[in-house]
Amino acid sequence: MSPRPNPALPLATPAGVEVLTRILTQGPIPRVEIARRAGLSQAAVTKAVAPLIEAGFVTDQPVTARSGEVVEAQLGIGRPVSPLTVIRNSVSVIGLKVTPTALIGVTTDFSAGIITARQQPLPDHSVETVLQRLTDLASELIGTLGDDSGPLIGIGVAVSGDVDAEHGVVRDSPFMGWRDVGVGELLTEKLGVPVVVTNDVRALTVSEHWFGVGVNADSFAVVTIGSGVGCGLYINGEVVSGAHGVSGELGHLPLAPGELVCTCGRRGCVETVASSDAILNRTRETTGRPDLDLSGAIELAHGGDENAREAFDRAGEVIGSALAAMVNLVGPELVVIAGEGVADYDLYEQRMREAFAAHAFGAAGDCRLMLRSHTFNDWARGAAATVIRSYVRGEQPFQR
Amino acid sequence: MSPRPNPALPLATPAGVEVLTRILTQGPIPRVEIARRAGLSQAAVTKAVAPLIEAGFVTDQPVTARSGEVVEAQLGIGRPVSPLTVIRNSVSVIGLKVTPTALIGVTTDFSAGIITARQQPLPDHSVETVLQRLTDLASELIGTLGDDSGPLIGIGVAVSGDVDAEHGVVRDSPFMGWRDVGVGELLTEKLGVPVVVTNDVRALTVSEHWFGVGVNADSFAVVTIGSGVGCGLYINGEVVSGAHGVSGELGHLPLAPGELVCTCGRRGCVETVASSDAILNRTRETTGRPDLDLSGAIELAHGGDENAREAFDRAGEVIGSALAAMVNLVGPELVVIAGEGVADYDLYEQRMREAFAAHAFGAAGDCRLMLRSHTFNDWARGAAATVIRSYVRGEQPFQR
Repeated sequence: MSPRPNPALPLATPAGVEVLTRILTQGPIPRVEIARRAGLSQAAVTKAVAPLIEAGFVTDQPVTARSGEVVEAQLGIGRPVSPLTVIRNSVSVIGLKVTPTALIGVTTDFSAGIITARQQPLPDHSVETVLQRLTDLASELIGTLGDDSGPLIGIGVAVSGDVDAEHGVVRDSPFMGWRDVGVGELLTEKLGVPVVVTNDVRALTVSEHWFGVGVNADSFAVVTIGSGVGCGLYINGEVVSGAHGVSGELGHLPLAPGELVCTCGRRGCVETVASSDAILNRTRETTGRPDLDLSGAIELAHGGDENAREAFDRAGEVIGSALAAMVNLVGPELVVIAGEGVADYDLYEQRMREAFAAHAFGAAGDCRLMLRSHTFNDWARGAAATVIRSYVRGEQPFQR
Repeated sequence: MSPRPNPALPLATPAGVEVLTRILTQGPIPRVEIARRAGLSQAAVTKAVAPLIEAGFVTDQPVTARSGEVVEAQLGIGRPVSPLTVIRNSVSVIGLKVTPTALIGVTTDFSAGIITARQQPLPDHSVETVLQRLTDLASELIGTLGDDSGPLIGIGVAVSGDVDAEHGVVRDSPFMGWRDVGVGELLTEKLGVPVVVTNDVRALTVSEHWFGVGVNADSFAVVTIGSGVGCGLYINGEVVSGAHGVSGELGHLPLAPGELVCTCGRRGCVETVASSDAILNRTRETTGRPDLDLSGAIELAHGGDENAREAFDRAGEVIGSALAAMVNLVGPELVVIAGEGVADYDLYEQRMREAFAAHAFGAAGDCRLMLRSHTFNDWARGAAATVIRSYVRGEQPFQR
């Protein structure tokens, strides 16, 4: 058994934060390798690691892959390298994803590994209803934390739209129909636990950066396609947050025809053509079947219906142009395409790739495109990853 | 007199680079302030500074504002704070800007302060002609370096388009009609001096970041409007370079009508409507006056000619949409609008602001817009600033 730590991290210096971050995201990793990658002396690494081991957050003993628990015997021969690993169950985290129709919640360990997942349908998406249900779901998840779980350090809430993470306020979420909702303060009050509120796509990007495909990429973009179109950017060593909290609004680039009005009220946004609602509405219009639902539209398109295919073609074309616009501006190494829309990727991939090739400028088009199917649990995990990052860095609400 | 340094910088550690960068960009600055801003101990700062003073790159004595020379007596009373300053004339740098019709060259000191500026018209813009004239201009500028100039550390060359800075190759410059031109190698051979080749807008961004309006901004964009439309981005502590060397290609976002073909061969690029050539061609078309030149078109528009005004309106609208697309994606704190086009800013400002307001998403639109009139000398200075940055960081071709 590892010692049960106090949730206060013994990190006194920027070097300490750097060291723990590397153990978390790149571990198991030997001290010498941390020193090399971080540009620190080995003495500095050893000095930062000692209190983390002492407090039970990190170990240099072999651990089981699954639970992160330290195992008894050390295998192998010769001088042991003793790579460092986080003790996964030294802390627990809760991540919640808010959608207009359901809440998704997970509990995770220190490495954002999902332990439990729960879903809760919403009768409506008024602020009152959602906050009550969020409180219920969080309480339910807290109840699942057993003796082998670490102490709960905080709860992350991921919402689409313009989120002021510093103050925990959802400033403008067209999907939810919310404006200036102080989710952070309200939930902290009800639950007595630190709460981090974040834009959902940015949360997914943090999660990919710390615990996913982005670990080894110098720069990447996560583009989510589904009920909305979003984009998280990781550039120059950090997830891009925007000076005023807004960034990655790929769904609101004015690349669609100007006569189309978006749910956000603006004209010609990518989402007016590329969101799943836009595709559905277009198919209803052109087929003259107002009764269709999205899976019906997908079925029609798969069956070769020209009208249904055209709606997906239009979406693919605008998504491809938006991807080109993004790579022309920031030139990422890797673009991860994700979101519910990935399930129907075959319906728009060709037009998307054509439009991308037509508008990507020079070597910007050489970025790798990778498809990744995210479940709703992954979105909730993103919220948990954001809590872990804030906790390690000593940011709001974890100031040291 | 300051000692004449050997151009080899005594920088052994990342902390040393950080310290010299702060002295260069934020000096005069006391040691204690460098330590605070860089998160270093005062001892580490003092240790990094000592060899820089010893070698004659930095001083803690008062200096004259103009030449950076150390003055004799120390004024004032009480314990002196002894802020650190670079000795400006400890090194010399040459910056060259290439345009299709002329070359612009400057010599600068260590702080990218312009000492001499020269311009050279081009009879044509073939690779052969331009490289010969670049060599001549560089030689002429080397000839201007007097006894009070520091040793020449390198030459920077700024070219528009897709530039592979690592290998000194202009991969694709539509304006110049160049593809895969090894400017760096060819010039290094002829001049025997390290040569840095860079995208021109990125060079301007480096210059604004180290020595201009960007010194105190957490994030900013430089948008240049003129014969092309470009954009340099500074995000998360660094100028964005793009994984494959391409970024900031605001002029090639597909925001204009798809029937318009760009000089780059793609359709619907911003530049098809917003470049000065596009504005001129449109005005010639609508006024039926193929003889007009750009100043004639500007004059007509200022005189209230509806056809000429419409060309500027179209440009303003697309530029505003492009600005909105950029801030929606990266959310900078500050947007600096620059370039030759700034001279006619009154002709498109209103439509630009309207389009920007219509498409900027939420708080992304709260960024500051600042107008800055850059001369061609400033572009050449950007090339020099890029050399200084590579030199301080020990990057290509200054590996330590």
